Amino acid sequence: VRSVDWVDGHLLVIDQTLLPGELRHVELRTVDEVIDAIKRLAVRGAPAIGVAGALGVALAALLAEQSGAGPDAVRRDAARIRAARPTAVNLAWAVDRVLARLDAGTAAVVDAAVAMIEADIDTNRALGIRGADWLETRVRPPLTVLTHCNAGGLACVEWGTALGIVRALHERGAITEVLVGETRPLLQGARLTAFELGAMDVPYRIVVDGAGPGLIARGVVDAVLVGADRVAANGDVANKVGTYPLALACARARIPFVVAAPESTLDASTPDGASIPIEERDPAEVLTVAGSPTAPAGAQACNPAFDITPADLVTAVVTEARVIEGAPF
Amino acid sequence: VRSVDWVDGHLLVIDQTLLPGELRHVELRTVDEVIDAIKRLAVRGAPAIGVAGALGVALAALLAEQSGAGPDAVRRDAARIRAARPTAVNLAWAVDRVLARLDAGTAAVVDAAVAMIEADIDTNRALGIRGADWLETRVRPPLTVLTHCNAGGLACVEWGTALGIVRALHERGAITEVLVGETRPLLQGARLTAFELGAMDVPYRIVVDGAGPGLIARGVVDAVLVGADRVAANGDVANKVGTYPLALACARARIPFVVAAPESTLDASTPDGASIPIEERDPAEVLTVAGSPTAPAGAQACNPAFDITPADLVTAVVTEARVIEGAPF
Repeated sequence: VRSVDWVDGHLLVIDQTLLPGELRHVELRTVDEVIDAIKRLAVRGAPAIGVAGALGVALAALLAEQSGAGPDAVRRDAARIRAARPTAVNLAWAVDRVLARLDAGTAAVVDAAVAMIEADIDTNRALGIRGADWLETRVRPPLTVLTHCNAGGLACVEWGTALGIVRALHERGAITEVLVGETRPLLQGARLTAFELGAMDVPYRIVVDGAGPGLIARGVVDAVLVGADRVAANGDVANKVGTYPLALACARARIPFVVAAPESTLDASTPDGASIPIEERDPAEVLTVAGSPTAPAGAQACNPAFDITPADLVTAVVTEARVIEGAPF
Repeated sequence: VRSVDWVDGHLLVIDQTLLPGELRHVELRTVDEVIDAIKRLAVRGAPAIGVAGALGVALAALLAEQSGAGPDAVRRDAARIRAARPTAVNLAWAVDRVLARLDAGTAAVVDAAVAMIEADIDTNRALGIRGADWLETRVRPPLTVLTHCNAGGLACVEWGTALGIVRALHERGAITEVLVGETRPLLQGARLTAFELGAMDVPYRIVVDGAGPGLIARGVVDAVLVGADRVAANGDVANKVGTYPLALACARARIPFVVAAPESTLDASTPDGASIPIEERDPAEVLTVAGSPTAPAGAQACNPAFDITPADLVTAVVTEARVIEGAPF
């Protein structure tokens, strides 16, 4: 089941806001629908929004061809898609890459975008196996790992980055259990990672986000595996809010803190974490759960969607091509 | 408004599970009702459950006198109250202290328990002023502070420990804003601390628990103030799960991590944090919010209610009598 796909000239995506209750596919037939799906996290996860953004540009090119609008219209649409979410660099990277084919014609744009679907799957398989190989030599299996948010097949086209490593380890019988941070405010861990681990038959338990560091300190976790939205040139990592405290706890407990991210998430043009734009989302996400208020009427909230983990806390960044080893553990 | 009080021979408590939606007082007229109120967190917060436990013993003594049951029945009831929750030492401390008066008769037991109500208020006022004095000399006001869970008037009889310091600072015009960790799973921050800060007219914003460390790293927080359920002899602190990551972040950011706790929370008989029993609560608390499921059907969860912050991460423990800086006491 692909989280993002291209069918008959439009996008077909899983609406991840409805999971785990409902697995519904939604067709995206306009650029505005693509942007809306990315903004409201119907499609989410750095690799997945990269592919969705690329397919959005393909859609823009097709629609422009049908309506007779020129390449400038496509470029304007591409700029709007590119700006839909600021933190994950994959979105800008994928939009730019596909848009560069515009002079070669609409078919070239569509081909480049569609090629990203298969490329993402291949990338994640390679990354998962590489990460599993690396971890198995560093920590004696079977492993209890902790993950945060969702870096699974839903965050990519399929297979997953951090959960791709879990999948590869599980196929080798090397996973005891996965602890899953629920990932407030939008509960991607409790909703999506739990859904994927259940489908993989991997034993798991959900924990509140505040509990991870204490469990790491108690010695019950062998490694933390997370995805990334952007890795700066100096190795600082932007990922879902709540990642940084896990890295702090890993460093103190001397266990590996492993970031799984395709090469397209590595951003040589951003010097460091302080230069990565952190998306601030609607306070209402914090003040409600599934539509129910959690706080007094009139309460205010602050809702940064990401945090920065400094490079010195990162044991390894695993990509499809290499393992960049950082701080020893 | 007192969270716990003694009226006409029974307990009168605020049912904190209903806040902020409803401020309802509940009468507790049997020992089982007292135990149930403590277990389901209708009464919560280390000082408050200490006072409730003491009043529970008074209730047991009165009921035993009325029914003709002997002192052994009171001791059995006291043992059950004492075991209602394991982590906060105040409960055992208060029960033991009141029970020691049993040989002097029922009136002596009731007097000792009722005296704890006023003593708790006095203790917290002194603690709040001492903590505010200490902080004002360490960090240039006005301050943005971050707190977790609820260490306010609801966690005590009134006034509060960590929020007592906030209250004292606010009265001096020394608070810019309080950031409040929502405190999953039971949202004591979003529900109770927000309710109290609103009533005090202190500006505040709620954040998800994963966000605190990243905000500390970004330099927007001047100090973290939390309560405690037990401070071990070596200075390790047990407090609501999610406290430890804040302490890790404070140490890295070189800002004060301040624990506000009455002397009764300091437990010389527990050598270190590893010796403090950590309450494991019902996984259903993690898997639901306000009764709505957050995870797939059949999902498992792990629900430790507290974590341990090692003494070397604690800048100061503020009590009603002293400020214990850095070193173990």
